[in-house]
Amino acid sequence: MTSITVKAFNDLTRAELPLAAQNGCHAEGIGNGTARVRLPFNPSLTRPGGTISGPAMMALTDYSMYAALMGAIGEVTLAVTTNLNINFLRKPEAVDMIADCHMLKLGRRLAVLEVSLYSEGQDEPVAHATGTYSIPPQQDS
Amino acid sequence: MTSITVKAFNDLTRAELPLAAQNGCHAEGIGNGTARVRLPFNPSLTRPGGTISGPAMMALTDYSMYAALMGAIGEVTLAVTTNLNINFLRKPEAVDMIADCHMLKLGRRLAVLEVSLYSEGQDEPVAHATGTYSIPPQQDS
Amino acid sequence: MTSITVKAFNDLTRAELPLAAQNGCHAEGIGNGTARVRLPFNPSLTRPGGTISGPAMMALTDYSMYAALMGAIGEVTLAVTTNLNINFLRKPEAVDMIADCHMLKLGRRLAVLEVSLYSEGQDEPVAHATGTYSIPPQQDS
Amino acid sequence: MTSITVKAFNDLTRAELPLAAQNGCHAEGIGNGTARVRLPFNPSLTRPGGTISGPAMMALTDYSMYAALMGAIGEVTLAVTTNLNINFLRKPEAVDMIADCHMLKLGRRLAVLEVSLYSEGQDEPVAHATGTYSIPPQQDS
Repeated sequence: MTSITVKAFNDLTRAELPLAAQNGCHAEGIGNGTARVRLPFNPSLTRPGGTISGPAMMALTDYSMYAALMGAIGEVTLAVTTNLNINFLRKPEAVDMIADCHMLKLGRRLAVLEVSLYSEGQDEPVAHATGTYSIPPQQDS
Repeated sequence: MTSITVKAFNDLTRAELPLAAQNGCHAEGIGNGTARVRLPFNPSLTRPGGTISGPAMMALTDYSMYAALMGAIGEVTLAVTTNLNINFLRKPEAVDMIADCHMLKLGRRLAVLEVSLYSEGQDEPVAHATGTYSIPPQQDS
Repeated sequence: MTSITVKAFNDLTRAELPLAAQNGCHAEGIGNGTARVRLPFNPSLTRPGGTISGPAMMALTDYSMYAALMGAIGEVTLAVTTNLNINFLRKPEAVDMIADCHMLKLGRRLAVLEVSLYSEGQDEPVAHATGTYSIPPQQDS
Repeated sequence: MTSITVKAFNDLTRAELPLAAQNGCHAEGIGNGTARVRLPFNPSLTRPGGTISGPAMMALTDYSMYAALMGAIGEVTLAVTTNLNINFLRKPEAVDMIADCHMLKLGRRLAVLEVSLYSEGQDEPVAHATGTYSIPPQQDS
């Protein structure tokens, strides 16, 4: 049902996404247009106020969309973000952050995805995002 | 005219923004509600296709907004992003990236900012963003 | 549990929101931070291609957020949209459109809301939006 | 230089965009990827507080993007909005509203546009928006 395994996506992360790999980002679950990914807490991710920085959360958001898209269409590494919109809702805790992504629409050329971000162990999201990926014409992966 | 110097903002970057500092982000100019910041090129910032990754560009965007806001209201480090929307326009070159930010609106509680991102030496922007910062009630800086 | 009744909100629509009233927009359900609203189909809402125009959908989106916000905080008519982001996902049918809104976050000053729009009788959303409302300081309603 | 005249675009408005026509929206200038359009003030456009409603401003925004896109690629009426993001900056006056649009990027499949909205006679924008249009494959118009 899913077009990429968690293991294959995490291998790809280490091989091709140095920023994500450096922060320890990894997938924990990938389905057909869905993904759960994790950002391990690390003091170097923080900003004034002691919380996880916005850019670290945006990076996790984009990473979850990349995973969910590949869960739907396979290892199309050249798919690129064309738009990302994020609302920051609550102050994150100094713990791991989880992003849950699911696809709202898969077209031939564009995919639209939605992401909710959580501090581990909390019920209320710390941020919510939507984004669009452009799928390259030839999907030979 | 500006409420923070370039030197003070770059000192703050090293002291308080470990992710930005680690990537070598720094300000080159700050005015009253404007900022020019730079992300030095580094292979660890790239993604499949050899271009600078979206998350690195989002981080630079947010950093430029933080600088421009402080250029207007001073060292209010606890100001936080509430919304960020970015459109990726063109494939960036494997060179330094520059972000130019200016403020669209400064209210008591919210500031709205606009950012254009460029590959150094290019005229056409590689990305364009808008964002909102929430300004904490007491602005003792 | 809800801070405004469907009847009160529809009365307010006719009294204070001439554009929405003119298009026949009305609420069908309002809860504490949730709303379901309807835009009756009308040929004057269409655009080339025979589908409902984007602006009609944006108007319905904003209207659903206004209803859900009042469902949470009461008849605070001076609350205003500060940001709205919408992704158009599928071509709408020439039928009534339904918008389902729920609140992602209610703060003292800002509320963030999420909306899914459907052509009546369809399962897949035709559009998805998020938005922020600014709540005026004195909430005497 | 421009691919559609102001007259042709205003004729198209009356023939194909009933909502815009009903509100009196019309173009005043169209260039290659730029447009200035006007929404005449009308009490039926207002909302609580006596200002022009958000949906009226979103409609004007989208209309300006449609005009600027046709200024660049001609009368491709089936081009559709895929994303629109708007920030409301200041309370509009009870006067005509002007939207100035210019294109940030024209690709084969997508165009990204930026819009500033003004109350007539004011220097500071009342709103700022960006949006993406999808261009249909065959551009025979």
